[in-house]
Amino acid sequence: MPKINLAVVMLLALRIGAWAQHDPLPSWNEGPAKKSITDFVARVTGQDGPDYVRPAERIATFDNDGTLWAEQPLYFQFFFVLDRVKALSPQHPEWKNKEPFASLIKGDIKTALGGGGPSVLEIMAVTHAGTTTDEFETVVKDWLATARHPKTRQPFTSMTYRPMLELLTYLRDNGFKTFIVSGGGVDFMRVFAEKTYGIPPEQVVGSMGKEKFEVRDGKPMIVKLPGADFVDDGPGKPVGIHKFIGRRPIASFGNSDGDLQMLQWTCSGAGPHFCLYVHHTDAEREWAYDRTSNIGKLDKGLDEATARGWTVVDMKKDWKRVFSFEPK
Amino acid sequence: MPKINLAVVMLLALRIGAWAQHDPLPSWNEGPAKKSITDFVARVTGQDGPDYVRPAERIATFDNDGTLWAEQPLYFQFFFVLDRVKALSPQHPEWKNKEPFASLIKGDIKTALGGGGPSVLEIMAVTHAGTTTDEFETVVKDWLATARHPKTRQPFTSMTYRPMLELLTYLRDNGFKTFIVSGGGVDFMRVFAEKTYGIPPEQVVGSMGKEKFEVRDGKPMIVKLPGADFVDDGPGKPVGIHKFIGRRPIASFGNSDGDLQMLQWTCSGAGPHFCLYVHHTDAEREWAYDRTSNIGKLDKGLDEATARGWTVVDMKKDWKRVFSFEPK
Repeated sequence: MPKINLAVVMLLALRIGAWAQHDPLPSWNEGPAKKSITDFVARVTGQDGPDYVRPAERIATFDNDGTLWAEQPLYFQFFFVLDRVKALSPQHPEWKNKEPFASLIKGDIKTALGGGGPSVLEIMAVTHAGTTTDEFETVVKDWLATARHPKTRQPFTSMTYRPMLELLTYLRDNGFKTFIVSGGGVDFMRVFAEKTYGIPPEQVVGSMGKEKFEVRDGKPMIVKLPGADFVDDGPGKPVGIHKFIGRRPIASFGNSDGDLQMLQWTCSGAGPHFCLYVHHTDAEREWAYDRTSNIGKLDKGLDEATARGWTVVDMKKDWKRVFSFEPK
Repeated sequence: MPKINLAVVMLLALRIGAWAQHDPLPSWNEGPAKKSITDFVARVTGQDGPDYVRPAERIATFDNDGTLWAEQPLYFQFFFVLDRVKALSPQHPEWKNKEPFASLIKGDIKTALGGGGPSVLEIMAVTHAGTTTDEFETVVKDWLATARHPKTRQPFTSMTYRPMLELLTYLRDNGFKTFIVSGGGVDFMRVFAEKTYGIPPEQVVGSMGKEKFEVRDGKPMIVKLPGADFVDDGPGKPVGIHKFIGRRPIASFGNSDGDLQMLQWTCSGAGPHFCLYVHHTDAEREWAYDRTSNIGKLDKGLDEATARGWTVVDMKKDWKRVFSFEPK
């Protein structure tokens, strides 16, 4: 009965077409990682199920560096800081003989950062402080428009992970409110988070410096001061979530030990919850690093994820495509 | 032609009916204050007008004490603190001989608060610190359920202003995102803000203490520590807006000099903006106070509002009804 067979084939084709069309995560390979995500979303959105969560409680928090965009060979904000030092150096002739600035101007990052924390903080203080928040926004915007990554030669905002952008959209389409909770500077991230991730400034939590309101010549302004006010990393992340969001997320996404406490906090909640680590396993398309990396070290977190059954994304296996930009 | 007259009358009646039905601010008397609000909303939502603001930028910030709910004869959070001191006093026999606790237990608030800032901070530290954030939420919830205002005998959450609740809804219906930016404790306000105002925890900015993440017996928790971390009052308000919201509001609502810098920040923005002070002028239905009040002092703010043409709501003249609860 050729007519019926044709009809069956056409129906099947239509079904497969509809299914392919509606896959909300097309850059994810089929497998346990992808399935764990879609299963969780189905559970918390199923109105008749025991795990239903009302939309207001569907809070999802994402680390940024290494989770939503790349972080090698240096945190991207640090490239900004380096360019800022170079741009400001003509006004600071004394930097030529003063570390860490002398090394930075020469491009010797290793020596510059050899001093550890205090050097980094000193560099941040010099490059971020003193400006008004409005001025700082302009400086970051201009930098993002022109700066390129040393390896890919792409704008930094094109080095976001396509599978993660799909995930953000998928969660929002299912009534989730998506937040960034990152160790990066909040004033830096807020400049691009809305356009790049669809995450508005008020849903970006990050590290921040001290600030002061003042009225200069009748014009109110907020001035950035030297000194850290809040460090949104490690145990600071759940504290930041409490301070800035005020309710416990039901889903959290990270890639390093600096995200571990955020995942612990999320996945010890009373209701349904979901924790996911992005594991950088793809030296060819991105970078491969974990337990011994200086940037984005994932050691304790990997053990705890395994012990607790959290989802671990194997970039190489689970992602059809890595970056937002078209690879060559 | 009686038939036509009847039709005209019916049409008119229908039109008036529709208009009355659609008045989004029924507790506001017609007048310049109400008109300034509806005019502003029409301007920023009119897609073809020069003052159109896209919804993501329609940020409106509200003070809480004296703006959304009453604040006399004491900030409501202070009644909570007083009850907390009484509840905790059996565990602190030493308080009987130690100020400010001795006076508080006796109900002598004047003497207790005579010490000024440090006393208040000491009381806050003792009553808020040491608990986990989850425990604190339960304590506040239980207190709100049973505590009554000394004058009205109403639950504190019924002493919200009906016209302001209508205003919050009206703004949200017009694509605004409404935030609280208050000197009150953020962990206190977030317990009731969603149910009472329709404002979710992540849109409540307030004063906060230091906090610490720790894992006790395998259970992650956030513990409140003594000591203030951020004071969201006066010049702290625009800083809080920048830190927690990350973009400048286009509309701000307050009632005291502690809101002045927030209004200055909002109304010095480049685009369209709206600033409003609630002026407590109704000794009969609420309280009448301004330039010399210890609580909710409105002095410099009143002068600046007049000079700059901000809206000043005269509670007595502009509000048909004051509170959410049904007055006797």
